[in-house]
Amino acid sequence: MLSISHRGQAMPASPIRKLVPYAEAAKKRGIKVYHLNIGQPDIETPKMVLDAVRNSKFKVLEYSHSAGNESYRRKLVGYYESVGIHVNYTEIIVTTGGSEAIQFGLMACLDAGDEVIIPEPFYANYNGFAVAAGVKVVPITSTIRNGFALPAMEEFEKKITPRTKAIMICNPNNPTGYLYSNEEMQQLKDIILKHNLFLFSDEAYREFCYEGKQISAMHLEGVDEHVIIMDTISKRYSACGGRIGAFITKNKTVLDAVMKFAQARLSPPSFAQIAGEAAIDLPANYFDTAKAEYTLRRDLIVKRLNAMEGVFCPNPGGAFYAMAELPIDDADIFCQWLLESFSFEGQTVMLAPATGFYGTPGLGKKEVRLAYVLNLNDINKAMDCLEKALIAYKNK
Amino acid sequence: MLSISHRGQAMPASPIRKLVPYAEAAKKRGIKVYHLNIGQPDIETPKMVLDAVRNSKFKVLEYSHSAGNESYRRKLVGYYESVGIHVNYTEIIVTTGGSEAIQFGLMACLDAGDEVIIPEPFYANYNGFAVAAGVKVVPITSTIRNGFALPAMEEFEKKITPRTKAIMICNPNNPTGYLYSNEEMQQLKDIILKHNLFLFSDEAYREFCYEGKQISAMHLEGVDEHVIIMDTISKRYSACGGRIGAFITKNKTVLDAVMKFAQARLSPPSFAQIAGEAAIDLPANYFDTAKAEYTLRRDLIVKRLNAMEGVFCPNPGGAFYAMAELPIDDADIFCQWLLESFSFEGQTVMLAPATGFYGTPGLGKKEVRLAYVLNLNDINKAMDCLEKALIAYKNK
Repeated sequence: MLSISHRGQAMPASPIRKLVPYAEAAKKRGIKVYHLNIGQPDIETPKMVLDAVRNSKFKVLEYSHSAGNESYRRKLVGYYESVGIHVNYTEIIVTTGGSEAIQFGLMACLDAGDEVIIPEPFYANYNGFAVAAGVKVVPITSTIRNGFALPAMEEFEKKITPRTKAIMICNPNNPTGYLYSNEEMQQLKDIILKHNLFLFSDEAYREFCYEGKQISAMHLEGVDEHVIIMDTISKRYSACGGRIGAFITKNKTVLDAVMKFAQARLSPPSFAQIAGEAAIDLPANYFDTAKAEYTLRRDLIVKRLNAMEGVFCPNPGGAFYAMAELPIDDADIFCQWLLESFSFEGQTVMLAPATGFYGTPGLGKKEVRLAYVLNLNDINKAMDCLEKALIAYKNK
Repeated sequence: MLSISHRGQAMPASPIRKLVPYAEAAKKRGIKVYHLNIGQPDIETPKMVLDAVRNSKFKVLEYSHSAGNESYRRKLVGYYESVGIHVNYTEIIVTTGGSEAIQFGLMACLDAGDEVIIPEPFYANYNGFAVAAGVKVVPITSTIRNGFALPAMEEFEKKITPRTKAIMICNPNNPTGYLYSNEEMQQLKDIILKHNLFLFSDEAYREFCYEGKQISAMHLEGVDEHVIIMDTISKRYSACGGRIGAFITKNKTVLDAVMKFAQARLSPPSFAQIAGEAAIDLPANYFDTAKAEYTLRRDLIVKRLNAMEGVFCPNPGGAFYAMAELPIDDADIFCQWLLESFSFEGQTVMLAPATGFYGTPGLGKKEVRLAYVLNLNDINKAMDCLEKALIAYKNK
């Protein structure tokens, strides 16, 4: 018998996408499904960003530089400057989505068996990238009752072993929406300096902050050699399908190693680099509009959730996710039941069970993640469904 | 001291791109450099392929399905049918270039420490993907004097160990241009059946055959569970920058595992999937024109090379590469000298030293790879440079 690898077997299925067959079956039965399970924004990609691609005049769809077009990287320097991150263009490697930036970081900085500490709940695909790299994810628990604040220094130190090479954060956080404070970022700085670790900072949601501003890992002083930013245009410009991200560090040894991985896969996608470059010229108020819309959505979904009996939802400071504790025993079963057995006025809602975002088995069983990527009207209808569903589920 | 991973240190630099700084310096000195070092075709991407993207009307640049747009996969079935490969759309996973298809195959089928046998010289980036996956490349030598024919069955069997999981070929071959015969493909079938191995077949250059037709690994009967095709639109439609490829197999266990890797990185690029889908509607004679042009180029470069004193170049049956043995001791030094210290009428030529394409240390030191991706006039001028350079180098 020809068998696949253990790594192929160990690779986790996406917790966000695993309920898709149930959603498809519900739709076939004529049920409208509100998708709060996945972070695909409904906001239109700015027309000038798409037009830059549509009006391009080149005749050969060539490989770009393995680090991305130099013109794009040079413009990115200006973008980062505008958010207080001072880098030069040689410190930026354009990647195929933020996903590839994460993979490059794990591959270049950690060997198989090395450990990365990640506050849980965390973006589930970190697990997949870690399995691919043979790296061990060591979760450190943040709790919904504490609003998912960063665990204390002592908690981190309990997790550090001789194999620990890095701490990875997502800020603002997916899936919790938590925005790390200045004090928390200073705490992370102290830890990586004291224990000589890399700090991987996934800053995909940098602009989506509703309570204060993001403190970037690159705002921290004296840790240039330690900090790596993983970035993406996906959420920033509602350009998820472009698959353009960035790997940024001032650590030259890391940059040189990552360039070799970048050269092996030749180049990031050419079309979407044009889009990414055009996006930098968006008017300064572009994010104001998007932020205002997301703020309204967040306020609505948090209010609706907390008004339901037995539901608790801390107010997320950023990104476009909310985590909620529901009066249920098993979110996986409940979310499947929502799609398989429930409807209200011909409609139901799809949520992401939180278990897939925790590294510690058994955690998150009462929690779900909701992506507020639908308009206010649809969010209201989706919350109507959830409210009715929780009552029906309790009386089952 | 914060150190990178051993994997990051072991990652090989691209042998095709490592001389780039010398080429840039030559250009700064005003020297025109003919690039025969890299497989970036000069042929225009078909206008209808680029127009499909430019005329697209969508408003949100969304994630696609992790396996690629269903409409694209369904059309690919027709393309593969046209080349005698019978698959259904669920057996195709659209990838980010052929590069990602190769990575997926190594990750899903081999564990760290497992071995893949590859006839050398081989596409140098296989090394990089193997390092990333922790997989050991076991080279099996084919020789320029034998035209790079497939080594005999016994040679393969000498290399097989309990850790051998797969054989990987590229057909037609990069870097040798060799097109495997029906007998050679049958030999590979016998080996994978006898030793229960996967056969990874990189078929990026399927249409570029000048002596007969390609026998695809999927034309072999009775080995459905063993065969995986790694494919790409890069060379086929001169669309290298699109970063669209395909992973194809009838092995359901492998498909399921690869889908988990595909889900982790979310989706392949959306713009270029539109281009790839449009390309399938190109007229049937599209490849005739490209093939006729490449045949002329091949004939010219092979004739010019073999007319030079001490140069031997076997006639490649496919792809757009030729390997040549030169009357020199060290191709790496010679290729660097071409860029640093030589010019003829203000021009020089950039070649890829063959050492980077061999897995066995010390092999290929007298050989170079030439990509005939320039027009006939430029090839002639590049060959003038090489001819003069070999004389100058000898008399140095």
